[in-house]
Amino acid sequence: MISINLVCVGNLKEKFSKDEQEEYLKRLSAFCNLKIVEIKEQNQLQNPTTIMEKEGQDIVKNLKGHVILCDIKGKELSSENLAEKFKALMQQTSVITFVVGGSYGVSENVKKLANERISFSPMTFPHNLFRIMLLEQTYRAFTIIENKSYHK
Amino acid sequence: MISINLVCVGNLKEKFSKDEQEEYLKRLSAFCNLKIVEIKEQNQLQNPTTIMEKEGQDIVKNLKGHVILCDIKGKELSSENLAEKFKALMQQTSVITFVVGGSYGVSENVKKLANERISFSPMTFPHNLFRIMLLEQTYRAFTIIENKSYHK
Repeated sequence: MISINLVCVGNLKEKFSKDEQEEYLKRLSAFCNLKIVEIKEQNQLQNPTTIMEKEGQDIVKNLKGHVILCDIKGKELSSENLAEKFKALMQQTSVITFVVGGSYGVSENVKKLANERISFSPMTFPHNLFRIMLLEQTYRAFTIIENKSYHK
Repeated sequence: MISINLVCVGNLKEKFSKDEQEEYLKRLSAFCNLKIVEIKEQNQLQNPTTIMEKEGQDIVKNLKGHVILCDIKGKELSSENLAEKFKALMQQTSVITFVVGGSYGVSENVKKLANERISFSPMTFPHNLFRIMLLEQTYRAFTIIENKSYHK
């Protein structure tokens, strides 16, 4: 079973986000070993470069396997494209790591270490909502690969 | 104060989605009169055209002011572009109506009556999550227009 790691800056504060995350983790357990690594958000009073550098040091420690950086300027994919990507990657690696940066993005070092960058939308979403979107698309990708009807 | 109507096919079933919707409705009440109109989802055993036609009849009754159809094939916008669009529309109309169709999309009639189509992402999202994304982007647009810091 493939391992998927979500390395995310910041934690979930709202109960509704935690509950929705739980729901997707439950559904995803049928398809992969999914692990969420929460990176401590740096004090926002520091300058952006310092914030990205410090968060980047913690992110780098958690990069394993094929690394996909979620980046508004990355390549846009349809849900079917993401499923095809998963299918191809599962032939090559046992771990896929998604990185979701903080408010200012990620350090240059993290960018260099990422194998690719993908974008979900040209719109900016808050980190809690984006995390749910990523979990949902991961779940959707597996239902496409396994040709299962989408559980609503 | 501008009125914004969200005409959505289907209702929210999950408690986490209802709670998140409530949170955005509370925040949005500072900026607009937001109304959500839930269109009854047709029995999925019918053929897609029949489903879209029947849902379309109910959607059409609720189209007021400037109509924006949310469509995966619509024009992609950044959050800033959406804010600019809102700002311009508020000079021209007192009502903006967003339409979010059902599983198969919307009828030709609804497409004809829409003033424009916008896309949030080339990815497909479930209707409950998409509704939250739309509420969040609407809220974000107002914080951009009013130059307010985004309340997290």
